[in-house]
Amino acid sequence: MTEFETTRARFHLPEGVVYLDGNSLGPLPRGAEAAAARVLREEWGQDLIRAWNTRGWMNLPARLGERIGRLIGAAPGSVTVGDTLSIKVFQALAAALALNPDRRVILSDTGNFPSDLYMAEGLIGLKGGGLELRTPAPEAVKDALSDEVAVLMLTEVDYRTGRLHDMARLTRRAHALGIVTVWDLAHSAGALPVDLEGTRADFAVGCTYKYLNGGPGAPAFIYVRPDLADRARPALAGWLGHRAPFAFETAYAPAEGIARMRVGTPAVIAMAVLDAALDAFEGVSMAEVRTRSVALSERFIAEVEARCPDLALASPREPSGRGSQVSFRHAQGYAVMQALIERGVIGDFRAPDLMRFGFAPLYNSEADVVEAARVLERVMREGLWREAAARPQAAVT
Amino acid sequence: MTEFETTRARFHLPEGVVYLDGNSLGPLPRGAEAAAARVLREEWGQDLIRAWNTRGWMNLPARLGERIGRLIGAAPGSVTVGDTLSIKVFQALAAALALNPDRRVILSDTGNFPSDLYMAEGLIGLKGGGLELRTPAPEAVKDALSDEVAVLMLTEVDYRTGRLHDMARLTRRAHALGIVTVWDLAHSAGALPVDLEGTRADFAVGCTYKYLNGGPGAPAFIYVRPDLADRARPALAGWLGHRAPFAFETAYAPAEGIARMRVGTPAVIAMAVLDAALDAFEGVSMAEVRTRSVALSERFIAEVEARCPDLALASPREPSGRGSQVSFRHAQGYAVMQALIERGVIGDFRAPDLMRFGFAPLYNSEADVVEAARVLERVMREGLWREAAARPQAAVT
Repeated sequence: MTEFETTRARFHLPEGVVYLDGNSLGPLPRGAEAAAARVLREEWGQDLIRAWNTRGWMNLPARLGERIGRLIGAAPGSVTVGDTLSIKVFQALAAALALNPDRRVILSDTGNFPSDLYMAEGLIGLKGGGLELRTPAPEAVKDALSDEVAVLMLTEVDYRTGRLHDMARLTRRAHALGIVTVWDLAHSAGALPVDLEGTRADFAVGCTYKYLNGGPGAPAFIYVRPDLADRARPALAGWLGHRAPFAFETAYAPAEGIARMRVGTPAVIAMAVLDAALDAFEGVSMAEVRTRSVALSERFIAEVEARCPDLALASPREPSGRGSQVSFRHAQGYAVMQALIERGVIGDFRAPDLMRFGFAPLYNSEADVVEAARVLERVMREGLWREAAARPQAAVT
Repeated sequence: MTEFETTRARFHLPEGVVYLDGNSLGPLPRGAEAAAARVLREEWGQDLIRAWNTRGWMNLPARLGERIGRLIGAAPGSVTVGDTLSIKVFQALAAALALNPDRRVILSDTGNFPSDLYMAEGLIGLKGGGLELRTPAPEAVKDALSDEVAVLMLTEVDYRTGRLHDMARLTRRAHALGIVTVWDLAHSAGALPVDLEGTRADFAVGCTYKYLNGGPGAPAFIYVRPDLADRARPALAGWLGHRAPFAFETAYAPAEGIARMRVGTPAVIAMAVLDAALDAFEGVSMAEVRTRSVALSERFIAEVEARCPDLALASPREPSGRGSQVSFRHAQGYAVMQALIERGVIGDFRAPDLMRFGFAPLYNSEADVVEAARVLERVMREGLWREAAARPQAAVT
């Protein structure tokens, strides 16, 4: 693998900051600014409307899909980029349900990201017909699979605790029962090896602003297993998923393959920035990323447990059961995290009591992890969080 | 109104180009590059995740909604920005149908932009229940209104010919019959005065990359009439439309007002660019824009008809019946447009035979219009389009 110093140099990281929140928003990649300047000044500014042809803008969703596909074990031509993750969840879930029209249950879990559940609720509201969303606890999902279930929709890595579902096993079991699977890879893509081809997952979606460092609100992606792509019916039937968008026909006819999951005009500037961000993964193997990620999280747990007896580990203790994130609980978690952030150690907080720390091996070092634990120890020992506890909470936590 | 020289100076326009395609993609506004650099380097690069609070990122959809709302006659707090226009059409149409649950007809017209019709098809596919999309010719819409119709969904300005629907009158008539209205302002916003409050339109949507100059794939907007906003049920129930997104509740509960029409994480970089683009409208009155737009299009028609007897006007002759665009028909329209573009006059082409010319009074002058007509005359007289006719068509026209 590319040396750590090399990959860390691919990012702008502010002086004096230990950044352990790449699981929420990855840092600014080196080439992003130049990419944005180029797409604005040279492409849009000079070529204007012609840039759709001259600069390959129309092909960005497919090209970025290829680049992301390589990081998540997807076959060529099976991923496209656009919209937000919530929209991609809706698309995948609607298409998955249409492949199993005689069943009425969407099975998810209480560990799924709320927006995924909300989008399912919204879709059920549209479709009616007795559809039902079931959300058992994550550990009860396996036993909740049955031949009543149309779609199993899960996020592989729990956004709160980092708990990792066994995607291969659950997909296999689901398929044996005739269930179509939708996997949300928001906290997986770029964080750990994903093998979409090998697991034969039916649909997958994810965002690009976490471990893929695409920037705030960067576009999402969707994967459809190649043998399903031409049968997957787009519910969000936008013109750029049409087989001939520039024929301007009045009736919808889906494009072949994954292109039908495109909806509207691609967000060119955001995609140019994402393109530059993906350069940070050049020469990097996801297996090595995983090895480093496990080393970082194991070290962090050991340091924090040794230094901060008041904090309770909320993540699975076995590294094979976690993504690339570690969470600790504390009743004053919000205030503790604020005190950390004020001292340059940036993680984040999820109500009611979770402090989250994400590890991105491309730019996080063992030294980061030890420094974070050292500052956390001081905040706890000296009660430095008390001042933050007295202030109102920020809007975004 | 601000002088023409002042508003033109708010854009980068390449030397030697007459740009009459702002109805497809507006040109690069002066402040866009600096805005992108700032959001990347200073905001994302320095503040990282904290920027959601410190830089007001989370409020961008509402703040931009206010700025756009002022250009389309919307009351404060009634517009939000995000996603693509196709997604916003889906949201508006789904919410409109839910307000009229006992009726089964969506009335649009053959002049609507195809993606709007496709999104309606997709929504009907989800909802079933005998819903039907009717698309009479634009001039037959008025008589197709009836108490069978649940929703009237129209684009105010026809993307091909520039024909302008009478929004006030059709909305009034629709309301008298108990019909909910959805207006697509893609070719209206920033091009002509729109009076959402005055017409009492129920829903409106639009894009920002045409006359609002937000850049390729810039986010869309949605308007809900304030008295309907708390009754409009979001079908795309994303977490940022939740009443408390950072409470991470498992059940969806919509935010109050227009905020419920937010879906996923805002596209911050694109929104920062759009914010800078909207500066070009500072001090500009839409009434003056309209006066200038009519003068430009009238002059263009007069010049072209005098110089090019082979071209047939495809737009309404009465300026009050047009938006800010003029189209001419010619059997070799594609090749003629290519020949124009090669000579620095940029319009575009829509199959089978339409050449479109958009007029954006913020940066288009009478001199532009005369020059365009002069070059068009030469292309026609000297048959300069024959060379382009022999080449394959570009992917994006």
